[in-house]
Amino acid sequence: MNTTPHLTEPEETPEELEALLAAATSAAADWGQRSPHERADALSAVADALDTAGHDLIAEAMDETGLTEGRLTGELKRTTVQLRMFAEQLRDGSYLRIAVDRQDPDFVLGARPDLRRWLIPLGPVLVYAASNFPFAFSVAGGDTSSALAAGCPVLLKAHPGHAETSRKTAEVVESALRTAGAPEGTFALLTGRQAGVTALRDSRISAGAFTGSVAGGRTLFDIASSRPNPIPFFGELGSINPAVVSTDAERERGEQIAAGFVSSFTLGAGQFCTKPGILLLPRGSELPKRITELAQEVPPARMLTSAIAERYRERTAELAAAQGVEVLVHGTEHADPSGVPQVTPTVLHAGSVANLLSEPVLLEENFGPCAVIAEYDADEDLREVISAVPGTLTVTVHLAGQPDEAERQQVSDLVALATSRSGRVLFDEWPTGVAVTPAQQHGGPYPATTAGSTTSVGTAAIDRFLRPVTYQNAPEFLLPEALRESNPLGLPRSTHQPGTSQNWASPQ
Amino acid sequence: MNTTPHLTEPEETPEELEALLAAATSAAADWGQRSPHERADALSAVADALDTAGHDLIAEAMDETGLTEGRLTGELKRTTVQLRMFAEQLRDGSYLRIAVDRQDPDFVLGARPDLRRWLIPLGPVLVYAASNFPFAFSVAGGDTSSALAAGCPVLLKAHPGHAETSRKTAEVVESALRTAGAPEGTFALLTGRQAGVTALRDSRISAGAFTGSVAGGRTLFDIASSRPNPIPFFGELGSINPAVVSTDAERERGEQIAAGFVSSFTLGAGQFCTKPGILLLPRGSELPKRITELAQEVPPARMLTSAIAERYRERTAELAAAQGVEVLVHGTEHADPSGVPQVTPTVLHAGSVANLLSEPVLLEENFGPCAVIAEYDADEDLREVISAVPGTLTVTVHLAGQPDEAERQQVSDLVALATSRSGRVLFDEWPTGVAVTPAQQHGGPYPATTAGSTTSVGTAAIDRFLRPVTYQNAPEFLLPEALRESNPLGLPRSTHQPGTSQNWASPQ
Repeated sequence: MNTTPHLTEPEETPEELEALLAAATSAAADWGQRSPHERADALSAVADALDTAGHDLIAEAMDETGLTEGRLTGELKRTTVQLRMFAEQLRDGSYLRIAVDRQDPDFVLGARPDLRRWLIPLGPVLVYAASNFPFAFSVAGGDTSSALAAGCPVLLKAHPGHAETSRKTAEVVESALRTAGAPEGTFALLTGRQAGVTALRDSRISAGAFTGSVAGGRTLFDIASSRPNPIPFFGELGSINPAVVSTDAERERGEQIAAGFVSSFTLGAGQFCTKPGILLLPRGSELPKRITELAQEVPPARMLTSAIAERYRERTAELAAAQGVEVLVHGTEHADPSGVPQVTPTVLHAGSVANLLSEPVLLEENFGPCAVIAEYDADEDLREVISAVPGTLTVTVHLAGQPDEAERQQVSDLVALATSRSGRVLFDEWPTGVAVTPAQQHGGPYPATTAGSTTSVGTAAIDRFLRPVTYQNAPEFLLPEALRESNPLGLPRSTHQPGTSQNWASPQ
Repeated sequence: MNTTPHLTEPEETPEELEALLAAATSAAADWGQRSPHERADALSAVADALDTAGHDLIAEAMDETGLTEGRLTGELKRTTVQLRMFAEQLRDGSYLRIAVDRQDPDFVLGARPDLRRWLIPLGPVLVYAASNFPFAFSVAGGDTSSALAAGCPVLLKAHPGHAETSRKTAEVVESALRTAGAPEGTFALLTGRQAGVTALRDSRISAGAFTGSVAGGRTLFDIASSRPNPIPFFGELGSINPAVVSTDAERERGEQIAAGFVSSFTLGAGQFCTKPGILLLPRGSELPKRITELAQEVPPARMLTSAIAERYRERTAELAAAQGVEVLVHGTEHADPSGVPQVTPTVLHAGSVANLLSEPVLLEENFGPCAVIAEYDADEDLREVISAVPGTLTVTVHLAGQPDEAERQQVSDLVALATSRSGRVLFDEWPTGVAVTPAQQHGGPYPATTAGSTTSVGTAAIDRFLRPVTYQNAPEFLLPEALRESNPLGLPRSTHQPGTSQNWASPQ
């Protein structure tokens, strides 16, 4: 059985949606007040259950998305690893940033009361699943697991590109949570497109998280921001991910760079948010020729959905028709039994940086296996491109050899500029394949994300769903266990003793 | 010389505004890349300069605002202490949250590259000064000092209620920054009302910070959110700050509570964002009588501006006219040489909780020395009020004695509810007088703030103006000093070694 190209998003009735919102709201106080260890155990149980159901889930996802077993096996592993990483983070407890200011009668600005600050969950979170990660950014993906870890119930708007995989995964998640003792309503699936919008307008929803297109994400961001009570909306929208190759790098390992680039921009049929969309090569580079050869060898790969394929077809035609663009590799479309087309890569050459910059359409993400090459003459060209691209998740720089002092300064300036336009700057590697670890940053200035101060990958993703609350002069029995003087949960805390503030009072 | 009641906000010409924006943008890269120690020295220098200029600044502020010398002396001290606290935070360096993931060829999801994450400044910040704190939430106040500490240049929209104080303070700040070696454009004053709006729409501004009314703040938030590239807007708008008194607390220390309440809601003529606006007393309480007596003894106090006085007059009349409201103390207006009226407190009694809740206007902030009392019958009444009030900065609970188990559970439930509606829950004290310390939280759900995950008071305020960036596989010479393997700045970091991820791979 193959999926139909006509995706359906069965609408919940108003009564069904109301029941889901009410259940999430009712679960929020209970789930949010469980100890971090209790939530950790529940997340681990979800991970275990997904492992157990893995064979069936992967088979379903292969059928719906056309992705390979290897890719989906790795992605499911990433999903369960994420859940266990968040579980470990909960057990560690430092994510709560507990701070205790002890009473200080001699505080420099007058007697200071006992103050205890920690982070509490925001409340029910509405997560919109991504098209391109049926597991890792979908039902039990990074947004869901970080929100559940934070203590927020999750309403998950399924992506129609893998509806049945979503339904089956949701069953596993719900069942595992129930068995682990989580309250009803801690997690639920939404399928209706309109229901997903209506829910975002509901005052009981406290935050939104989204991975998808700029147009769709901006519409939802605008809804979240224009509510009577605006809420944070963590949207990851579009990213061009420019990559720069130095003359020395090409000389030292041109073949490796050409191969790495083709492999990265065609990975997953180019349907990754970190796909390097622009490659900046030194004037007269030999690499366009080699990239052309390698890209021509890439076999057809199925797009995720007919809608994505349709948009990719239009956008690629638009880029190819831009002023001064030469088509190095003309991607082709092939029929697939699923009805969703397969495509081969397209490589475009924009000529000079000046021409690249004169056609803004070339600086915007084209979701699929298409990349744009341009050739630079001087470092100033590179600075102009990095300044001109919209906010991006990543900037990649390929260097080599032992740069002299002048070269070091030039590339330092470029890197400083790159950090101002992106969330991750990487060297001599490629941006696809985002490591899930504490020091990861998957975010960036708009439109890379709508909330550049946050990440959607890595353990810091939990920060999005928490907010601080301070207890002042609270009797011990009214403090959450985590904040009590006796610290029965043994959580880490930073304590500020009295008598240390006098040096702020006057010139030192 | 007294200020005219007609406040002026002289508009910058478009050329002047452009020059200010260009200077701030040009300063951003330089100021943002200074070492934390260098910025700390500059902040300390600003604090020292404000101390030196204190006598003149306080005299000017007394003249413009009618606030007392004692109040303004304390407020200027708070301002310089804040600057020195942020300087200390910079020298400590933990605010950068530096995380280093070492390369791990055996990472559970495939080889992990070297990843180094820290926080960088957002870029130029537009700060709107508050009416009610001519020093501590104005030119050199908490928003400015936390943004400068983060490494962000500041454009400061002066409040016309203390225009000359602002101008003089800005001179001190600019001069001290220049002497300390900060780049031109690190700080500048804006006076024009329209210029303050135009600047918020400018793509070079990276964030806004605001303290003021719900109407004004929401207008600016909407502008920030609807830009082609939306930016964070940290607005502190309006807060009702409900306070609850238990039967036992009244019995144990009713007189003290009545005196504390009157002192708190009339402090600064009630023009504090943490003013307790609603007092919930047990049915049949004796306190309304005592509060009435005490409030009648409070001498007239000058409002901050004619515009605030006008709005307060209208709002108070509206509240007094609400269904079922009894006027216990009818505030009076008195002429002041400045032309801005003096007022005495108003105390309103809304009767039952049911009546309070039937008149939503009673649940909204009225900026000035007015408070609303209501009497509750059961704990359910209290839960209904706390659920019904808009998001608030604080909830205050007055308790006493040794509660039994059932009472403990009841008050625990109430406190849990209070944390879901506010940013600070305090016991047996009053919410005015906000301690400036690490564990402080001055924020809360909308409309208390537009960004409830942040605080505008205390050292955590710096978090608002930072965003993460990760360096992947960077050569040592391209890393910022703070992230280098050799750690030449000696900043704290959390390091994740290889070989610790295998336990995330499978059921434990």
